[in-house]
Amino acid sequence: MKTFECIEGGVTAAAGFRASGVAAGIKYEGRRDVALLAADKPATVAAVYTANKVAAAPVRLDRERTRSGKAQAVVVNSGCANACTGAQGLADARETARLAAEALGIAEDLVLVCSTGVIGVHLPMGRVAEGVRLASAALSAAGGDDAAHAILTTDTVDKQFAVELEIDGQAVRIGGMCKGSGMIEPNMATMLGFVTTDAVVDAAALDEALHYATDRSFNRVVGDGDMSTNDTVILMASGAAGNRVLTMRHPQWQDFVDALTMVCVELGKKIVMDGEGATKFVTVRVKGALTAEDAQKAARAIAKSPLVKTSWFGLDPNWGRVIAAVGYSGAEVDDQWAQVYYGDICAYDKGRVTGKDALKPLQDVMRKRVFDVTVNLNLGNGEDTVYTYDFSYDYVKINAEYTT
Amino acid sequence: MKTFECIEGGVTAAAGFRASGVAAGIKYEGRRDVALLAADKPATVAAVYTANKVAAAPVRLDRERTRSGKAQAVVVNSGCANACTGAQGLADARETARLAAEALGIAEDLVLVCSTGVIGVHLPMGRVAEGVRLASAALSAAGGDDAAHAILTTDTVDKQFAVELEIDGQAVRIGGMCKGSGMIEPNMATMLGFVTTDAVVDAAALDEALHYATDRSFNRVVGDGDMSTNDTVILMASGAAGNRVLTMRHPQWQDFVDALTMVCVELGKKIVMDGEGATKFVTVRVKGALTAEDAQKAARAIAKSPLVKTSWFGLDPNWGRVIAAVGYSGAEVDDQWAQVYYGDICAYDKGRVTGKDALKPLQDVMRKRVFDVTVNLNLGNGEDTVYTYDFSYDYVKINAEYTT
Repeated sequence: MKTFECIEGGVTAAAGFRASGVAAGIKYEGRRDVALLAADKPATVAAVYTANKVAAAPVRLDRERTRSGKAQAVVVNSGCANACTGAQGLADARETARLAAEALGIAEDLVLVCSTGVIGVHLPMGRVAEGVRLASAALSAAGGDDAAHAILTTDTVDKQFAVELEIDGQAVRIGGMCKGSGMIEPNMATMLGFVTTDAVVDAAALDEALHYATDRSFNRVVGDGDMSTNDTVILMASGAAGNRVLTMRHPQWQDFVDALTMVCVELGKKIVMDGEGATKFVTVRVKGALTAEDAQKAARAIAKSPLVKTSWFGLDPNWGRVIAAVGYSGAEVDDQWAQVYYGDICAYDKGRVTGKDALKPLQDVMRKRVFDVTVNLNLGNGEDTVYTYDFSYDYVKINAEYTT
Repeated sequence: MKTFECIEGGVTAAAGFRASGVAAGIKYEGRRDVALLAADKPATVAAVYTANKVAAAPVRLDRERTRSGKAQAVVVNSGCANACTGAQGLADARETARLAAEALGIAEDLVLVCSTGVIGVHLPMGRVAEGVRLASAALSAAGGDDAAHAILTTDTVDKQFAVELEIDGQAVRIGGMCKGSGMIEPNMATMLGFVTTDAVVDAAALDEALHYATDRSFNRVVGDGDMSTNDTVILMASGAAGNRVLTMRHPQWQDFVDALTMVCVELGKKIVMDGEGATKFVTVRVKGALTAEDAQKAARAIAKSPLVKTSWFGLDPNWGRVIAAVGYSGAEVDDQWAQVYYGDICAYDKGRVTGKDALKPLQDVMRKRVFDVTVNLNLGNGEDTVYTYDFSYDYVKINAEYTT
């Protein structure tokens, strides 16, 4: 895959977008918790939502509204997920959008809403209204940073990434921001992602591109195996770059898709890097699986196994737990053919047990904050890669103390 | 289900069995790590093995040997799983059985072998031979306790349970021992279970009974979602009680099955109670599911969710995480119909969010070491119950420091 020139910024890196992030006291006082992202004109939109059968009110609202392929603004609040909140929750989501539409002087159905935070608590609408008012007044082409901070919950750092490429001789930009540090995977889980581009893109093609990029990025981020009720990735294209409309037949279509994928992959990695209590960032690669599905099953089982995750935290090259995870993943595996590597060091080789002398080099690999675990099943050509982190004391602490 | 009279003891509670547990220095010096269980005469045997595709050498050996429905002895070692050890591992398992057969003066194919401990390390056969020699010499009808201690790994307590019932006017006993405190579920996971009875039982019927009992006990024990390469449950019937042979047509067949199930359920609960670092013992009940499969999917998803488990540790009645787990379990769920209870206190009622005043009573339930979490989906009649525990700092500590 091609790589592209990284540039500063996030959702306001592309032309035609303004953003802001303000403190409205949704859950805590004096912390930015309402973000607003607005396009100068109605933009082409595509979105991917949680596969969780219990979908939050804003997800249910946005699913309806993004069908049109058009949107102009997104209101995001942190501190309250507005999930499992019944009819009142849906009404609150609609009212939040109406308030933003009013403040921006645009059509109500062009406004999307995203929420993240505690489930089962109603939105404090008085504060939300105040937040929307402040956020509308604060909108600016330099507001990407403020917005990126306002959408965070247990995240310890903001997450932004942007690239620039040329299409039809025009400079085109793609930038985004996201939040998420726990309840990651399967299929994105608690993460909100917002990507903007100034490219002119056909609506159906934009939807294709977002699904392609999400499957190779946010859907390959494996956390603790939980999946949230609020996961949403929204992609808006303002068209300000003035290129010839991008469709799958455009000669530079794959460049655009690759650049979008790169942005999503980098954003996804930032989520893993900020995993709750994570001390290790581990890329799990499975090769030689009988099928691609097998490779994915095996990689996810390894990345989700609490026993594997705790062994990483303990600098214990316990490849036996890795093999055992593959064994129950549903993937075909023969331990007499499988190989397990930590970095480039082979820990297990087709039934041959590595001696005690291999322990030190293996632990040297694990002492790094970032390392790879590779399993070669030597059965076929199926491959998959997922990104994950370890389980530490802090993982338990953060999640035990994150109160309802 | 009927309950039966509990009696003292474990695998030697039933007549016709002797056992022992000795220290052979397999992994640590001076710790009992070789257990021997022997019937006075060839016994009827049934067994259930791990579903993990990576099966340890002893599992592969026993699968062959228990097909005959006859066995007379079982050698168990802790400290080394003899898994992922290739052809050498299988040879070592056979040699272990041969040594025991020689010491006991019985046929080699009547001896079964079980191992538990670290994966990927070869059995120290010199020590195993010494252990078998010592264990054979130490066999006694009072040796159940020693055996129950010798099979432990990270367990903090030995696990034994026995009952007595009357069949054909004869006193019949069923007793067992097990080990396991981590890597529990799906389908038993790292646990070894040994149950003996002096009843006269038909081989096919014994197999039926063990599968029935296992499905309602060890298979309902949910730990961290990992499954081991060594899981085995072995049931031996000596026939010393002299009752009319038990088959599914025997009038007291269900009594025998219920008594066996009770023994397995109590043993399974002891495993959960001894969960690695567990501070809470939680029974998760799902009612009103569309199907029984849905109920099981939902119950397992709740019991396996690291976010739910850490919230229990933190005394946080975070029912939102419970609903979210059901949402991604694959079970049908409508959050506007679902209800979540901690003990008898309703935390979430069909979209109605409980107020802050409910927090204290909910936390009072969670302060107990043992409590229930019940989800009523109100969609059908599917029900299931699983037993699990929380994730604490110690869970991470134990598993991070359990070295390869």
